[in-house]
Amino acid sequence: MAEALDPILPSDIDDLTRAVLEAACARELTLATAESCTGGLLASLLTDMPGCSHAFERGFVVYTDAAKSDLLGVSPALLENGGAVSQPVAIAMAEGAIQRSDADVAVSITGWAEDVGDPERPAGLVHFACARRGGYTHHRQARFGDIGRGPLRIECLSVALKMLQQAVEL
Amino acid sequence: MAEALDPILPSDIDDLTRAVLEAACARELTLATAESCTGGLLASLLTDMPGCSHAFERGFVVYTDAAKSDLLGVSPALLENGGAVSQPVAIAMAEGAIQRSDADVAVSITGWAEDVGDPERPAGLVHFACARRGGYTHHRQARFGDIGRGPLRIECLSVALKMLQQAVEL
Repeated sequence: MAEALDPILPSDIDDLTRAVLEAACARELTLATAESCTGGLLASLLTDMPGCSHAFERGFVVYTDAAKSDLLGVSPALLENGGAVSQPVAIAMAEGAIQRSDADVAVSITGWAEDVGDPERPAGLVHFACARRGGYTHHRQARFGDIGRGPLRIECLSVALKMLQQAVEL
Repeated sequence: MAEALDPILPSDIDDLTRAVLEAACARELTLATAESCTGGLLASLLTDMPGCSHAFERGFVVYTDAAKSDLLGVSPALLENGGAVSQPVAIAMAEGAIQRSDADVAVSITGWAEDVGDPERPAGLVHFACARRGGYTHHRQARFGDIGRGPLRIECLSVALKMLQQAVEL
C-alpha cells in the first residue's frame, strides 16, 4: 500500500502501482518518469511503496519548456511548432528520459490541467509516451475534459501506470 | 488549497505552500526541487495549487546515487565518503539544482525513510539544503525517528517549505 499518498488513491491505482513495481523488480528493470502536468506525483507514487521503490531510478519534473529542453533534450522547435502538449513532445520526453537516465523503461506525461480560455489548449488533453530501452515507444492521447486539476492528476497516474505495466511485461 | 494532495496534508502545510508560492510570484522568483527520500512529493505539492504553480521551474527526483551525480553534479567521491544522506550531499544537491536550472531558489531533501538495521543509517535522519542564486546556501538536519515512510514524507515537506519561504523572503 502507498504510504503518504494512500488516502488520495483509488484502490485500483494502489494495486496497479504495486503490480508495476513488482513486475519491474522481478525482471530487474528500472523505471524513470518525465512529468509535466502531474508535477512529480507519479514519481512520488512509485517511491511511496515499501519494499520495491528501488525499481524507481530517477524522475524529471519538467514544468517549463526550458526544463523539457535542458533535462530531456526536447528540441525547442518541436515545442514551438506542436506545443508542449503534443504527441511528438510526449515521445521526445520519454525517449529523452531513457537517454538521460539508467532506466530501462520511461514514461512521460504532458497535458493541459486547466481551462485557459484557448480552444487550442483544451483542459484535460494529455499526451503520454512510454519508451523501453532498445525497444519501442508507445504513445497515447487522452481527453479527460475539464474535470479539475486534482481528478485529472489521478486519471493521469492510471494511464501512465498501465503503459509502464505493458512496457515492463513486454 | 492543494487539489490532488489536499486530503493528505495538514492545513499548516497547505497554508505554507500557498505562502511560499505567493511570495515567489510577488518577487518574480522561481523554485526548483532536488528530492531523494520524498521522491517528487514536494514538486507535486508545489504544482498542485491553482493560480501560482508557474513559480515552480523544475524538479529533480534523484533516487539513486547515479541520478544525484548525473543530474545535479554531486561528486561520486562525496557520495562515497559521507554517504548520500549527509550535509555535503544535501548542499551539493541544492547548489546543483541552481546550476542545472533557471530557478532562483532550490531546496534539496535527502534522508533515510526506513530502518535498514544499520546504525549508520538511522530511520528518520534527513538533511536539507536551500540555495539562493547568487546568495547563501542554508543547511538543516532533522532526526524525525522511525515514524514511518508516510509521516516522514509529510514532515520533510514542512521543513523544506519553511526553508524555501526563508530564502524567498530574504
